[in-house]
Amino acid sequence: MDFPSFVSEREAGALPAGFLAGAVSAGLKGEDIPDVGVLVCTSPGVTSAARFCDSGVLAAPVLLCQQECDLAAIRAVVANSGNANAATGELGMTQARLVQVGAANALGVDPSEVAVASTGVIGVQLPGERIVDSLSGVGATLDAHNADQFAAAIKTTDTLDKHAALSVELPSGTVNLSAQCKGAGMISPHFATMLCFVETDAAISAERADMLLGASVERSFNRISVDGQLSTNDTAVVIASGASGIEIAPDSEDERHFAQALDALLLQLAILMVKDGEGAARVGRIQVTGGDEQATEAVARAIANSPLVKTALHGGDPNWGRIAQAIGATLRGTAPLEFNIKLEGIQVCRAGAAIDFDRAALVRAVQRDEVRYEVNLPGTGSVAEYFFSDLSHGYVTINAEYTT
Amino acid sequence: MDFPSFVSEREAGALPAGFLAGAVSAGLKGEDIPDVGVLVCTSPGVTSAARFCDSGVLAAPVLLCQQECDLAAIRAVVANSGNANAATGELGMTQARLVQVGAANALGVDPSEVAVASTGVIGVQLPGERIVDSLSGVGATLDAHNADQFAAAIKTTDTLDKHAALSVELPSGTVNLSAQCKGAGMISPHFATMLCFVETDAAISAERADMLLGASVERSFNRISVDGQLSTNDTAVVIASGASGIEIAPDSEDERHFAQALDALLLQLAILMVKDGEGAARVGRIQVTGGDEQATEAVARAIANSPLVKTALHGGDPNWGRIAQAIGATLRGTAPLEFNIKLEGIQVCRAGAAIDFDRAALVRAVQRDEVRYEVNLPGTGSVAEYFFSDLSHGYVTINAEYTT
Repeated sequence: MDFPSFVSEREAGALPAGFLAGAVSAGLKGEDIPDVGVLVCTSPGVTSAARFCDSGVLAAPVLLCQQECDLAAIRAVVANSGNANAATGELGMTQARLVQVGAANALGVDPSEVAVASTGVIGVQLPGERIVDSLSGVGATLDAHNADQFAAAIKTTDTLDKHAALSVELPSGTVNLSAQCKGAGMISPHFATMLCFVETDAAISAERADMLLGASVERSFNRISVDGQLSTNDTAVVIASGASGIEIAPDSEDERHFAQALDALLLQLAILMVKDGEGAARVGRIQVTGGDEQATEAVARAIANSPLVKTALHGGDPNWGRIAQAIGATLRGTAPLEFNIKLEGIQVCRAGAAIDFDRAALVRAVQRDEVRYEVNLPGTGSVAEYFFSDLSHGYVTINAEYTT
Repeated sequence: MDFPSFVSEREAGALPAGFLAGAVSAGLKGEDIPDVGVLVCTSPGVTSAARFCDSGVLAAPVLLCQQECDLAAIRAVVANSGNANAATGELGMTQARLVQVGAANALGVDPSEVAVASTGVIGVQLPGERIVDSLSGVGATLDAHNADQFAAAIKTTDTLDKHAALSVELPSGTVNLSAQCKGAGMISPHFATMLCFVETDAAISAERADMLLGASVERSFNRISVDGQLSTNDTAVVIASGASGIEIAPDSEDERHFAQALDALLLQLAILMVKDGEGAARVGRIQVTGGDEQATEAVARAIANSPLVKTALHGGDPNWGRIAQAIGATLRGTAPLEFNIKLEGIQVCRAGAAIDFDRAALVRAVQRDEVRYEVNLPGTGSVAEYFFSDLSHGYVTINAEYTT
């Protein structure tokens, strides 16, 4: 992932002007391990936007944000790991509300300005009071350079740090952009299972922020798969402090550049999630062309989610029949289908049939850290690209013993 | 799986009257390892029916059967393991035709009476001539008690034998029924990825045989999942020799009993496939009630296919949040959804919320060889039941190195 030329990286942990972040421990992940991250914007003219997954089993914090927050004016975030507060019913809603109100009190803001988020085990009641108690110490941890500590506090099975801080040169001046994510398992192309918090000191209307966030999520977190499993807690929030004094006008050159930077930022973090997929050792990148939008999307998702493709990727097995299987399983009833397959640029299948290729070269090519797959369907309609992790012994180990 | 009271098991390998089976080696799986199974019906009044999967990437033998066989009058089967003859184009079709004609010559029947089937690696040309050469020796292997040898020849990653021979007492007299299957990986609830050949000495019209086969497949092979992956080669064939002299009339009591026996036979073999799923150690049984047919089917499939549910089953982890996740991911946009979950009869979730339960009892219960999950959705419309295997290190090992 390369950033556009007008984007440069800032020191890790740096927040845009107008933001403070910190972390405390409520003992959800063990004694004194930070597991509650807090983010707050101190500027008066804050705007925001948020996106959530659409699972039929939405976690209490997601429902609470949708019901109790002014999503266009979120100023603070309180996010815990170690407990998803999902499938917890009315009590779960009450605990989430307790955390929201407790954080509002600790930060001196209105509860409707506080987004809550949780990640961890499903079906266990959240000890809201313990989180509220821990928040009494949060003031001392808040700092304009603590985005990394915030990001660390929301990790579950994540092994890589998932945060970035950028400086973006817009035609009207320089603004800063940062984001912190978590996500390693239960990652699906239907809104990856993750939390993502984005901050900027640009001034942008809530409507335009919402539009940009929606488009960037569609091109990043909706394009990755660890295991094809949709979570109950997905949340993405962008908060704009306006503290840079640079205003991003609708449809301006500023907005186009800002959107490109946001796209690149979220795609980088999304790919990091795949790379850090539970037990993952390798990344697959599938591009499907031809057909129509529905067909290319469906085939790319099926390949990205296939345990047979993922295990072959894991083993460096040049078994492209797994790709053919996923194509056929998706486009049922279309046989004989004339599709082409390339692995790392080496064509192995043309018009639906195996062709001769340099097997030794292919065996070498599929050993790479990232393996590129290309599928071409009949027609010229569309392109879909997805990123996915392999399926390894590590994934089995992590998930066979998640709660025990 | 219990058989109906009027069904009893015969010795392993026994075929109904009018059938012979045998196996030869074409060297597809190694020197002198039987890898080509042959079945032939010697009775004059043969009838048959066949079902195939509907993948967009159908294997050449499936396309050939559909194009060249009289599916109501199949008398012989030639099935090889070690090579799927899928994604092999026109050359693959020619090789399949070569095998069909070669088998017809060896058995003295018409090519249109010979069903061909292949299973194994996708995307590698089938050495048809080697199979035809091997068939010159098939006559000496044909025997009325060799169904087990036929079944062994079509195994790929299967470790269990998958065949059964039954005696069925119908009101009009006793008929025999036998079946041989293969299937361990690429097993999905959309027609499990398998080959299945069924023989009977009952006399039944091709139309009724087709109807009964369709219904039984729907209730057996369409209700199991190893890895949710649809194959390119699925084939189920039933052949009736009529040699018992017992005629099964449409809508008769005979037909109802025969249908029950066929259902029980195919379900037993289907569950055996799950038990023998690649790397599988344990079987999950999910029953979803309530809602409507579409919802119960979709939720049961999602649970049966979920790698998170499968790894939890593998590890004996009582993590029912994985079930909640799969429900929510399937019924998107319905939150808050009031569903109930039981594991081994222990209720853990009521109206969408965690409840107190005896955790020690649950931990013990999920250690069993078969674990029963029950999900209840709002409404009273429907019931769906699926069987699935766990996801283990063995699955990863087998599929990471399938062709290498």
